[in-house]
Amino acid sequence: MPGSDTDEQLALLTANAVDVVSDAELRRKLERGKPLRVKLGIDPTASDIHLGFAVVLRKLRQFQDLGHTAVLILGDFTAQVGDPSGRSASRPRLSKAEVDGHATTYLEQMDKILSKDRLEVRRNSDWLATLGIEDVLRLASRTTVARMLERDDFAKRYAGGSPISVMEFLYPLLQGWDSVMIEADVELGGTDQLFNFLLARQLQEQEGQEAQCVLTMPLLVGLDGVQKMSKSLGNYVGISEAPTEQFGKLMSLPDELMAPYFAHTTPVTVSGPAVTALRKGELAPVDAKRLLARAVVDLYHGDGAGNAAEAEFDRVFKAKETPSAIPEHVLDVSEAVDGRIRLANVLRQAGLVTSNAEAQRLITQGGVRCNDEPVTDPDAALEPARLDGAVLQVGRRRWIRIRSESPE
Amino acid sequence: MPGSDTDEQLALLTANAVDVVSDAELRRKLERGKPLRVKLGIDPTASDIHLGFAVVLRKLRQFQDLGHTAVLILGDFTAQVGDPSGRSASRPRLSKAEVDGHATTYLEQMDKILSKDRLEVRRNSDWLATLGIEDVLRLASRTTVARMLERDDFAKRYAGGSPISVMEFLYPLLQGWDSVMIEADVELGGTDQLFNFLLARQLQEQEGQEAQCVLTMPLLVGLDGVQKMSKSLGNYVGISEAPTEQFGKLMSLPDELMAPYFAHTTPVTVSGPAVTALRKGELAPVDAKRLLARAVVDLYHGDGAGNAAEAEFDRVFKAKETPSAIPEHVLDVSEAVDGRIRLANVLRQAGLVTSNAEAQRLITQGGVRCNDEPVTDPDAALEPARLDGAVLQVGRRRWIRIRSESPE
Repeated sequence: MPGSDTDEQLALLTANAVDVVSDAELRRKLERGKPLRVKLGIDPTASDIHLGFAVVLRKLRQFQDLGHTAVLILGDFTAQVGDPSGRSASRPRLSKAEVDGHATTYLEQMDKILSKDRLEVRRNSDWLATLGIEDVLRLASRTTVARMLERDDFAKRYAGGSPISVMEFLYPLLQGWDSVMIEADVELGGTDQLFNFLLARQLQEQEGQEAQCVLTMPLLVGLDGVQKMSKSLGNYVGISEAPTEQFGKLMSLPDELMAPYFAHTTPVTVSGPAVTALRKGELAPVDAKRLLARAVVDLYHGDGAGNAAEAEFDRVFKAKETPSAIPEHVLDVSEAVDGRIRLANVLRQAGLVTSNAEAQRLITQGGVRCNDEPVTDPDAALEPARLDGAVLQVGRRRWIRIRSESPE
Repeated sequence: MPGSDTDEQLALLTANAVDVVSDAELRRKLERGKPLRVKLGIDPTASDIHLGFAVVLRKLRQFQDLGHTAVLILGDFTAQVGDPSGRSASRPRLSKAEVDGHATTYLEQMDKILSKDRLEVRRNSDWLATLGIEDVLRLASRTTVARMLERDDFAKRYAGGSPISVMEFLYPLLQGWDSVMIEADVELGGTDQLFNFLLARQLQEQEGQEAQCVLTMPLLVGLDGVQKMSKSLGNYVGISEAPTEQFGKLMSLPDELMAPYFAHTTPVTVSGPAVTALRKGELAPVDAKRLLARAVVDLYHGDGAGNAAEAEFDRVFKAKETPSAIPEHVLDVSEAVDGRIRLANVLRQAGLVTSNAEAQRLITQGGVRCNDEPVTDPDAALEPARLDGAVLQVGRRRWIRIRSESPE
């Protein structure tokens, strides 16, 4: 409902934002009463949406609810180019099919958060793939080396002697060109994108457009309480994960993160009774955490799913029983050597850990059980047939039942 | 005559060079007995060839004389792109017609030095203009920001806070791509090009080619005895300038530059009798300079031209007479204000000075005469008609006769 009370819209839209460039400009755009085009760039190199990214998506949904248009930019062009120097781990080169696959999965998951109305999905290959050398040189002339080296991550890498490919200086310009091409009124993202967003403003002005407003949202710290939530660090809660998984993971959250998690991952109002009670010490941290976990599960699995997940969590955790439904993993025997497969590999295959090294560390620490017996040898290996039906357990809450198909 | 004595070729070709990358590689290439492709890149943004650039051209001619192929690369693509940021004074944007004009003038002058046999002239727009964004990104991924900032001029500008456009980081890569496209065996240039040439070697190897050898020649210090010879600094001797002009300019050379000028601008052998006599103090500097000046004039205007220029120089200089042939300049009256044109502007128009500021400075210093009367007012202005036929003199050796066409 553009045209409704601007003060109210402005307060709602800038709530929880870290950087707003600028209140005055955003007010001016809102006052025109026309739906704004709100850009969100997505790097389709992974496919899981977690609570950290959901912070930005939920902000975008607020714009939609107020009648504005969400413009999702799939960065398929840059994902397909990757970093041909092979230097940057964050720029793998993906095939078109991979990008399409990630994009589809992404969009499906976004349905949980975004409205399908007032949603425009664009691929930046539509305008970037056809640029010629003169266009690229013109873009490259729009900023300076010194300015690029002011960007926090570049500054650190340069100071630390880590190589920065000259190509990496071009990517922020291409991302800014996206804003020009879709005529963005607002761009949303994490605080780590502020530099790029400001560069986009400059490009728009150089092209005779009004500069986009910029809204950055906080980067959510992951379950480890230290690093930014990310799939590759394993410290994340996916919005499409099973209710019990989400609930259990959130119960492991460090207490000091509860306030930002309430604020950024749930619809619970920060000024509401629960958070107030927590702050006053009238609500025990563990109960507050249950409230938080239920709220998140309800948000992504529907009302009531939180209660069910909590009940299951209690049954398993309190009774130290195995859960009623244990997921199954069919063994990939291609990793077997001399007819035996290492348990560490099986744990990784099954997704209970992210690497063989992590599995071995957990075994050494006594955190892995096989059919309720502790596993002590990090190099333990078994014949696949002997693993059929076995229940592997990692920590207190994660089980998998192994199925071994008979060899052909 | 590839296949002739390699040692002899190698000694001749590397004589006077500053950097040779490397003797061993060049020997290996020469030993194959096939004509080498020797690249020389030319920036067609100016059209006068001076003695400084001739140092490199004469080295290229040596290669030709030994049976190798000179491959001139006209950098027409980059000249046409220029620096759209307008930041770099060295990268004006030229039209195709301007580039063609400069190129033609260049090639005409080169006839004085290069042989027309074994000469290939290429334009880099042939392969650069059609590059797409993916090609450019791939090239940009081939080097790092840190490596670029090691280049001497970039390092200085970065340290000094002068802006370096990101585009400027792409130009050395494009120049290197030229080497790949023409499959250069050797690249020639001034010492300030060493960084770019080494980058080209890397690109060639990444493309599966043998890396080019690199030969850099010294940058000739200009007549001012301080800065590199360049047209824009006015401290140059053009190879197509009139004999008396060349002779007079060279007579103003600081004594300490005579040795490098003998070595790099004349065919006089450094170990020959003239230079030896000069070194031993048996030849007065002024006589050595006459020898030098005659040798240069002979080189570009034919045997005997040096003697004639010397005679004319003596007549004018010694007798303080005006020369027998004074060049004429037809007034461009578009600079007149209120019917009067400033002498400073006229001096600049006529090419006696390179800027109005220089003209005003010379007037203040008492170095300008009009019809043999000293001009004292740097803002002196006259009606164009009154200047018709007037002789303007700058310093001791430069005159121009003004012609004012009657207003229509």
